[in-house]
Amino acid sequence: MKLGRISVDTPFGAVSRLVAVDPTKNRVVDLATAELLRRQAKGATRDAAQRFASAIFPGSMSAAIALGDIFLETAHEAVEARGDDAATPISSVNWISAVDPPLIRDGLTFVKHIRQFHERVGAEPTEALLEIPGYFKGTPFTAVGHDAEVPKPFYTDYFDYELELGYIVGRVCHNLTPDEARKALFGVTIFNDWSARDVQKIELKIGMGPGKGKDFAFGIGPWIVTMDEIGRLDDLEMTVRINGKECSRGNSAETVWSPGELLAYMSISEYVQPGDLIASGTVGNGSGLEIDRKLEVGDVLELEVSRIGTLRNRVGPPEEKRWWPERRKKFW
Amino acid sequence: MKLGRISVDTPFGAVSRLVAVDPTKNRVVDLATAELLRRQAKGATRDAAQRFASAIFPGSMSAAIALGDIFLETAHEAVEARGDDAATPISSVNWISAVDPPLIRDGLTFVKHIRQFHERVGAEPTEALLEIPGYFKGTPFTAVGHDAEVPKPFYTDYFDYELELGYIVGRVCHNLTPDEARKALFGVTIFNDWSARDVQKIELKIGMGPGKGKDFAFGIGPWIVTMDEIGRLDDLEMTVRINGKECSRGNSAETVWSPGELLAYMSISEYVQPGDLIASGTVGNGSGLEIDRKLEVGDVLELEVSRIGTLRNRVGPPEEKRWWPERRKKFW
Repeated sequence: MKLGRISVDTPFGAVSRLVAVDPTKNRVVDLATAELLRRQAKGATRDAAQRFASAIFPGSMSAAIALGDIFLETAHEAVEARGDDAATPISSVNWISAVDPPLIRDGLTFVKHIRQFHERVGAEPTEALLEIPGYFKGTPFTAVGHDAEVPKPFYTDYFDYELELGYIVGRVCHNLTPDEARKALFGVTIFNDWSARDVQKIELKIGMGPGKGKDFAFGIGPWIVTMDEIGRLDDLEMTVRINGKECSRGNSAETVWSPGELLAYMSISEYVQPGDLIASGTVGNGSGLEIDRKLEVGDVLELEVSRIGTLRNRVGPPEEKRWWPERRKKFW
Repeated sequence: MKLGRISVDTPFGAVSRLVAVDPTKNRVVDLATAELLRRQAKGATRDAAQRFASAIFPGSMSAAIALGDIFLETAHEAVEARGDDAATPISSVNWISAVDPPLIRDGLTFVKHIRQFHERVGAEPTEALLEIPGYFKGTPFTAVGHDAEVPKPFYTDYFDYELELGYIVGRVCHNLTPDEARKALFGVTIFNDWSARDVQKIELKIGMGPGKGKDFAFGIGPWIVTMDEIGRLDDLEMTVRINGKECSRGNSAETVWSPGELLAYMSISEYVQPGDLIASGTVGNGSGLEIDRKLEVGDVLELEVSRIGTLRNRVGPPEEKRWWPERRKKFW
């Protein structure tokens, strides 16, 4: 099943709704509406049906995933029973990030990207990458969905993208083995780890992970494909287009750490949450850095992954600069 | 005002409650109960009074802070009107983390610690520390409160603490100036950035920030002191005791970046949330690394900050190791 989130205007403001997506029928189905109609047909009052439907299909994808199996089971049943009565044409939809993750973690697993990135910056990879599956954490509060405009940060002259897979976690994970972790995945989406390379370079020297280099935007969407539908994760074709022109192509084949190993490691001594997004790290050829291309205002970026879809965003004008730190005097 | 969170057992399971703390009277006041009684005395039905009281005083401190001024105003009024009828002796309380932050960010601002840390590890600080206020992000899902036992991670032979201030954010922050950011603070608490130094060292080489070096526990408490009560932030005495014996002492005087500058920087191009915890970085003398002391199972650590209180935790036995990655073959 393909599951996403859309924003719908109401007299009381915009609300977030969960939808099942059927690109072959060119439609999305509002899950809470389909379930409400199904419950009413089975004898529930409208108020009770609404209460039940919105408990299973709230506006938050991570809250829905946190319910466990009943979420996906009921989604299938509701679409089967009343999908035709709760459908909207796919072209009229206002997408938001497919999931609202409690936390974003992003690894570095694709062998080709690790090689190419280091060739490009002229440094040998650290052997620490062979010891543990390193990752950084990103704020979940700048997640953006399909077709959103992403402002170029005012503080960067080297704006870049990173084409990645986003693994969506299905349950609370704590001290899992790789096998258990693989089974704990809910689905996969396309993830764009937008990057401000110049600031990232300064942050790299400090060694506490990216802040302004990454946290201004994370692209998530257009929708999640559930694990039962996606099947294998190592044979996906991954393509980048800028302004309609293909500029690079990669695939998900060769990783130093598998998705299960990555999530298992993240779960050690901590609690990975349902709906958390675990990103794969950039696929080989998946960044502008590897093909000498910087993004500029107005560029339209499309990231396509086979069996998932296409995540498209336009680079928007920078926000106004209100403050940036001035360099301090050396105190050592 | 001093505000904290406690866990209370009920026939339906443990619930989290917000309390106002009065150490001079040796008591805490359950805020929702005090407000419920006050509303009833003003004519509300019990159900309506409960609905109102739990909307202002939910179990989540960050959700309460997100309400804005009405939270603190009503807390003062409720304690004034009905504090005596909703009080519990402070000694019988089961503390949990004083706030449940949507996200933890931790900076590096105390001059003395930066000097001493680098002397200790035998390296000069990077000049990047003078360019921007760097910080890392931590998972909020391992926050622990006063008196909780913190398991020593099974994967470390160098378990350490870091005594820091935790600034609690009062509202959504986006592109703020340092002045605006200072005014956006809600209060201050004691923060312990527990550290596994050996793994932290491997992660530092990867450059994506700490993961297993930090994310297993963050100590937050015992309570928050609001900004109107704490006054200045640069004259706090900060003391470390292990097993009852003072082992180091520092103060909050000399910083390379002020709390307002730190939060202003974090707010650039992203959205810092109400209840987010912004840590100051370790105070000078505030880590075992600086005094050559490693923590072992059974150690009782007390972190005291003047005008706030003492955050105490015991080091517990490790959890069972279920999996740890094996080193990969070099692929470049």
